[in-house]
Amino acid sequence: LKFSTSSVMAKSKFEYVRNFELDDTCLKNCYIVVRLDGRSFHKFSDQHKFIKPNDNRALGLMTRSALSVMEELDDITIAYGQSDEFSFVFKRSSNWFKRRASKLMTHVTSQFSSSYVFYWKEYFGEQPLLYPPSFDGRVVLYPSNQNLRDYLSWRQADCHINNLYNTTFWTLVQKGGLTTTQAESRLNGTQAADKNEILFSEFSINYNDESPMHKKGTYLIWEMVNESSTKKINRPNEAETEVTVTRTRKKVTAHHCDIIGDQFWEEHPDILERD
Amino acid sequence: LKFSTSSVMAKSKFEYVRNFELDDTCLKNCYIVVRLDGRSFHKFSDQHKFIKPNDNRALGLMTRSALSVMEELDDITIAYGQSDEFSFVFKRSSNWFKRRASKLMTHVTSQFSSSYVFYWKEYFGEQPLLYPPSFDGRVVLYPSNQNLRDYLSWRQADCHINNLYNTTFWTLVQKGGLTTTQAESRLNGTQAADKNEILFSEFSINYNDESPMHKKGTYLIWEMVNESSTKKINRPNEAETEVTVTRTRKKVTAHHCDIIGDQFWEEHPDILERD
Amino acid sequence: LKFSTSSVMAKSKFEYVRNFELDDTCLKNCYIVVRLDGRSFHKFSDQHKFIKPNDNRALGLMTRSALSVMEELDDITIAYGQSDEFSFVFKRSSNWFKRRASKLMTHVTSQFSSSYVFYWKEYFGEQPLLYPPSFDGRVVLYPSNQNLRDYLSWRQADCHINNLYNTTFWTLVQKGGLTTTQAESRLNGTQAADKNEILFSEFSINYNDESPMHKKGTYLIWEMVNESSTKKINRPNEAETEVTVTRTRKKVTAHHCDIIGDQFWEEHPDILERD
Amino acid sequence: LKFSTSSVMAKSKFEYVRNFELDDTCLKNCYIVVRLDGRSFHKFSDQHKFIKPNDNRALGLMTRSALSVMEELDDITIAYGQSDEFSFVFKRSSNWFKRRASKLMTHVTSQFSSSYVFYWKEYFGEQPLLYPPSFDGRVVLYPSNQNLRDYLSWRQADCHINNLYNTTFWTLVQKGGLTTTQAESRLNGTQAADKNEILFSEFSINYNDESPMHKKGTYLIWEMVNESSTKKINRPNEAETEVTVTRTRKKVTAHHCDIIGDQFWEEHPDILERD
Repeated sequence: LKFSTSSVMAKSKFEYVRNFELDDTCLKNCYIVVRLDGRSFHKFSDQHKFIKPNDNRALGLMTRSALSVMEELDDITIAYGQSDEFSFVFKRSSNWFKRRASKLMTHVTSQFSSSYVFYWKEYFGEQPLLYPPSFDGRVVLYPSNQNLRDYLSWRQADCHINNLYNTTFWTLVQKGGLTTTQAESRLNGTQAADKNEILFSEFSINYNDESPMHKKGTYLIWEMVNESSTKKINRPNEAETEVTVTRTRKKVTAHHCDIIGDQFWEEHPDILERD
Repeated sequence: LKFSTSSVMAKSKFEYVRNFELDDTCLKNCYIVVRLDGRSFHKFSDQHKFIKPNDNRALGLMTRSALSVMEELDDITIAYGQSDEFSFVFKRSSNWFKRRASKLMTHVTSQFSSSYVFYWKEYFGEQPLLYPPSFDGRVVLYPSNQNLRDYLSWRQADCHINNLYNTTFWTLVQKGGLTTTQAESRLNGTQAADKNEILFSEFSINYNDESPMHKKGTYLIWEMVNESSTKKINRPNEAETEVTVTRTRKKVTAHHCDIIGDQFWEEHPDILERD
Repeated sequence: LKFSTSSVMAKSKFEYVRNFELDDTCLKNCYIVVRLDGRSFHKFSDQHKFIKPNDNRALGLMTRSALSVMEELDDITIAYGQSDEFSFVFKRSSNWFKRRASKLMTHVTSQFSSSYVFYWKEYFGEQPLLYPPSFDGRVVLYPSNQNLRDYLSWRQADCHINNLYNTTFWTLVQKGGLTTTQAESRLNGTQAADKNEILFSEFSINYNDESPMHKKGTYLIWEMVNESSTKKINRPNEAETEVTVTRTRKKVTAHHCDIIGDQFWEEHPDILERD
Repeated sequence: LKFSTSSVMAKSKFEYVRNFELDDTCLKNCYIVVRLDGRSFHKFSDQHKFIKPNDNRALGLMTRSALSVMEELDDITIAYGQSDEFSFVFKRSSNWFKRRASKLMTHVTSQFSSSYVFYWKEYFGEQPLLYPPSFDGRVVLYPSNQNLRDYLSWRQADCHINNLYNTTFWTLVQKGGLTTTQAESRLNGTQAADKNEILFSEFSINYNDESPMHKKGTYLIWEMVNESSTKKINRPNEAETEVTVTRTRKKVTAHHCDIIGDQFWEEHPDILERD
């Protein structure tokens, strides 16, 4: 019994180590962006036979995991993803977890990572997940609406540039019969216009007709959605009747439109708070 | 084609937002501890019918996930877990990910979370995981060997105190027929000695005989392990022979001993680096 | 001679300690405010016989020191002071000292402190400075124009409240013959209106007629100022003539107006940068 | 009267801006080093005609200012200075100003800067200080005794290397008649041994005989010092007698010895706390 008593005493003796934890509160009135990137996803995508240049199963799973993050965590107003990355934007007035950076980034990363494994089967069916994948996260603060818009524009512009390159590269390999080394040197130094031209003149592919999800990536926002359901009503001395009930509720929805121009922001004035 | 060109230009125009990322390098020559805690695990354990006071399946899955973290990430020398928490200690001279706090904590959290879902079936069999669970993480730095030892002692003392309480509480409920409210008020204000006494005199349970894993938690360390394998050798004009090959390799091993006293540290001098 | 050689070698061996310095860069696109406060200035003002409630010599010296800071350091657009405190606002796009917080706050504090001693005689004449005074500094970031305006409004509102209290308190003591303890209890729980009433009905003092410097504090800004000088011109075969040359140059000027309302900001649109 | 009331209300409305201040607490159990460097002291020393290579008046004033810092601020156990820099070491267990980095570095910088002006006359006599000088400061944390010793060794090795260079350089100019450009190119690429040789063979100067203050810099520590004073005692019906009273008290003392080797640390075991 002595042992136990001394353990209680011991605990209070050790407890001073709590005070070594440093504060990492995010500056107020800034947008908090948490960005995740897949770790060693080049190797991961090879081992899991991702289709090139875009695997819709993998992109769908990324979006499904991001949806899970938005539904579980408070105060995320918009998320944007492409390839093996996803960014989550907390509203600038958020006080979730007292704005502590470590809590914000680890919760997002954790929810995303566990969801990726949890929903794997929905997107890859019988093809097994070979090992648990990993994502790294970071927090970046943006003080103004313009800064936040520029951040999201930066990621979407990056998506466009990478997708145009990858589409041309894999068309040269898959349809043009080039080796990957040949395709790489063929594209070396080319401008966007050149790549469009290669696709169009050599393979009759109009890049503008490619999938919006591949060209623009995916953003998730909260929208009011009408949901209809049928209800059976039984009143005494009356025949059963069916009525349609429409309920409006907030729901996370996925889109693949341009978020660089003004139109998106004019149509969704609630995402930004005034400077 | 114009669109693409302007997008390239746009990207460079937006790229300034990269510079909003702040540096969060950990002070050198300190032990870096990343601690994970389950989010809303009280509810999670109810929904997944965890056995009280300790569910060996759940503890095994935590340890399996921690093992996955140690094998995938560099420079973790010891990990300690109990209940729904796990701490990972990076060596003080580690330069993994340039000691950036965000990278360290999100990688640990991500690998742990995806592993938890990935290995669920190994521990819970046909009982399904109902939704993806989430863990939060934090980084704490410890400048001296004594501070690090005190941190680990703190967590193990906490394990002991909680387990003694929980063991007594659930014994009162499960064997003593008390309601949870009655058990709570019965234990209110009791010392460790009182709880030991309740267990022993009323239920003939000697707390010292309880499972070390429950009393002490679990630590993982790297150890040199001998692995034997059998090889068949065929030489020309000879009968096939079998030889046993023993290879020594570093491996993560799990234990449930005391890490508060000096003995553990004397037996494992490689975990601490000199002050 | 061996000694010297080994010292050179030694230096490179010790130089690793440089890397323990952590980065403290201020988030971009935020206003950087450095605020200084006098240390133990209650005692300092007693020992140097500051006139109560306001000593114009001391306030003048504070302003002179702040002027020295603005002239020596780049990118400060407005400074505001009252009592023994002064705030300096760096423009939000400033890249002075790479926005490193430690450099910004120590340079401001150092320049202010050395100036305070250097210019003492100009304000206190033959009354000697008894010992070197000390100020502490801090850095606070403000992400939006509104936040910055609210910060400056907060300091000016604080000035007003303190000055009304101090004016009434010292009038009760100096003209009303109360002890300081009696004055304190007389003012306990009074509102601003009550203090105005005491001053007016008992001492015929209209608080509105008090010195703007005492009621509003002092702000320093950069203004274009016309400076006229007389030049003598000698042309061959002509009588010497005198001409007045007017040159416009940027200069730090001191004011005591309201900066809470919109008027000040409309008249000085250059202080704020767009959100 | 309305104005005042609304100002009080206004203040509480603005007060939210306080919460934008971020925490910058220094990690516990680390030595906190604040280092000051003169700003633009090359120009400052030219304008104030500092003697080359070492001006004892300037070095004395630096030391006097550092002494003022040690006497005014708590918990500094050792300070080390050379040229236009000074480092102050707070004990690792210090809780002064709750270990807030900004408070620590600005207080040191402020006290040093005001002292530099305050004591100028004691060292430079009638030669006037032309303008208030400025110092910048920084905070660096050292987790172990070895790290701290290596930091101080780094600064003393730096002192030695610079002083040997400067002594040789200015001897070539002042006694050898070289221009500064010629002296610079003469020393280009030379080792410590070469410089010693130049001094010895060309100018009969044995570098080892140079002033310890110039070769080693200055450190300040707290020491127990015996202070004797004479007291006159008058007893009734006795002749007045004089007695010498010796009191032991803690005092800051300045030295110019080696602090790289072990001897210093063995003789002053109280400066370091155990790891």
